[in-house]
Amino acid sequence: MNRITAEEAAKILLGQDDILVLTHRSPDGDTLGSAYAVCHALRRMGKRINVACADEIAEKYSYLAAGMQDMDFEPRFILAVDVADEKLLGNLRKIYGGSIDMCIDHHGSNTGYADKLLLKEVAACAEIIYELLLLMKAPIDVKIAECIYTGISTDTGCFRYSNTTAQSHYIAAKLMETGFNYFIINRLMFEIKSKEFLQLEQKAIAGMEYYLDGRVAVITLTKEMMDSVDPSSLEYIAPLPRQVEGVRCGFTLKQVEENHFRISVRTGHELDASKICAGFGGGGHKRAAGCSFTGTKDELIGRLIKAVEKEMQQPIG
Amino acid sequence: MNRITAEEAAKILLGQDDILVLTHRSPDGDTLGSAYAVCHALRRMGKRINVACADEIAEKYSYLAAGMQDMDFEPRFILAVDVADEKLLGNLRKIYGGSIDMCIDHHGSNTGYADKLLLKEVAACAEIIYELLLLMKAPIDVKIAECIYTGISTDTGCFRYSNTTAQSHYIAAKLMETGFNYFIINRLMFEIKSKEFLQLEQKAIAGMEYYLDGRVAVITLTKEMMDSVDPSSLEYIAPLPRQVEGVRCGFTLKQVEENHFRISVRTGHELDASKICAGFGGGGHKRAAGCSFTGTKDELIGRLIKAVEKEMQQPIG
Repeated sequence: MNRITAEEAAKILLGQDDILVLTHRSPDGDTLGSAYAVCHALRRMGKRINVACADEIAEKYSYLAAGMQDMDFEPRFILAVDVADEKLLGNLRKIYGGSIDMCIDHHGSNTGYADKLLLKEVAACAEIIYELLLLMKAPIDVKIAECIYTGISTDTGCFRYSNTTAQSHYIAAKLMETGFNYFIINRLMFEIKSKEFLQLEQKAIAGMEYYLDGRVAVITLTKEMMDSVDPSSLEYIAPLPRQVEGVRCGFTLKQVEENHFRISVRTGHELDASKICAGFGGGGHKRAAGCSFTGTKDELIGRLIKAVEKEMQQPIG
Repeated sequence: MNRITAEEAAKILLGQDDILVLTHRSPDGDTLGSAYAVCHALRRMGKRINVACADEIAEKYSYLAAGMQDMDFEPRFILAVDVADEKLLGNLRKIYGGSIDMCIDHHGSNTGYADKLLLKEVAACAEIIYELLLLMKAPIDVKIAECIYTGISTDTGCFRYSNTTAQSHYIAAKLMETGFNYFIINRLMFEIKSKEFLQLEQKAIAGMEYYLDGRVAVITLTKEMMDSVDPSSLEYIAPLPRQVEGVRCGFTLKQVEENHFRISVRTGHELDASKICAGFGGGGHKRAAGCSFTGTKDELIGRLIKAVEKEMQQPIG
């Protein structure tokens, strides 16, 4: 693995054609926004390029690919965006594992699986893509602005989270000048809830459990609860426990099978979520991370609380 | 009433001393952020200046005035910020009504009650204050950045709503460069909910009523429900009805007495909330407005639905 600069990445991409852009599994606004921004831009520059994802893309993201048909070619250059680890390619790993030419990412935990890595620990991968497109002198039109804004907006919780920087706002200002409908995007990403989701949310909040004198809150989603809504809407549950006054660490436990859980962790600025998850073989960012666990719910909660207690003893950093 | 430019307003303020800044009743982040930004800045420039508000200021806004004591002087210049109508001064109207020297506002509906009016229809009054402080060559330090950011962030729903512009983001970027803790402000303004509020929210959502094939949603808050929480947290209820899929107009009815209601209206880009409220003697912005009503809930809902139907027949503008 070679670390490269944005200038080098721009030069390499300009010299390539027949490019396939890979996103991570369970795709979110940043991996998709980044991939489609690159795809729209390079197509406008006359290149053949497609986007691939192991999982189905939620309907609410369909505007990112609007008007885009898959092109017919044999890929000669594989680019991964916002993918911290080859494992996160899902089923695509079987085909492209070990042969990723370039990765563009903002996760400090990137495993360096790609031949060349452009890594900057900024709020969203889409911020790196914006810089790259400027260096490539790509035209930033309304569609590309929508894609980049979606990445930044979703990864920063619409500019709320502590990862937001002056640069995030500065790029947003530049994108707004293209006149795209950011408010329809924000409504799609952050506001609209189905009646089914509202019911799930009520159930989840009613069943919230508190530990460590209210400093930890836990929501548990059973398989039945999760089956009642569009899977992509589940990401809106993860921030809820941390919204309760006094809660410093929020867990959302998704009970995918009787004794198998996927866990989302959200923390305030004084606790490192990725360290809490590392003890379970997971990872992510400082304020938002994830892991899985096989065992009973009681065992899981016992271990999570221990991990939080340990992390609470660390100096704030 | 004389309309003045930001340059003229800056010159006038620089020439004044012993200033009292008035905010609107039921003070929100924009009126308070604007007032305290001016107050901090002019005090740093050696002037005597205080802020006054008819109603108690919620605890969550206390950081805006941190370290600030009331100064002892007889006001010689009265400035109102973010106050569209003298009526909105609440009890302060009795003292200062008819003698407001200058008003700085962003409401198109401003009644022109002040001697001089600086009006720009931007997202937040705090955006005008930022421009004014630059013109006055005031130092934009961390505390002033907090005040201005609070105004912009609260009035744009943290950069989500359709009133957000490139300028809103550009100012935010500039403010972020001072290094203030925007994420703690955003957590205070948008995230933290007390357990009591969570319960109220659940009850409100469970009781939501739908009209016009789900295009209108109505939440009703009884006096008992409202008494269970900090009054300042009630503003978080108003956006909820509009979040439901398919809802184009959301009403929140606050039943302050048996037959007396205060109504908050939230609409999408195709409906004008201020026009709906105008029929009830109220007003506000295109997407967020308010009014009051004396009568039964059934009468009120009947009239609100008629007003929405009428507004739905208007061409989109």
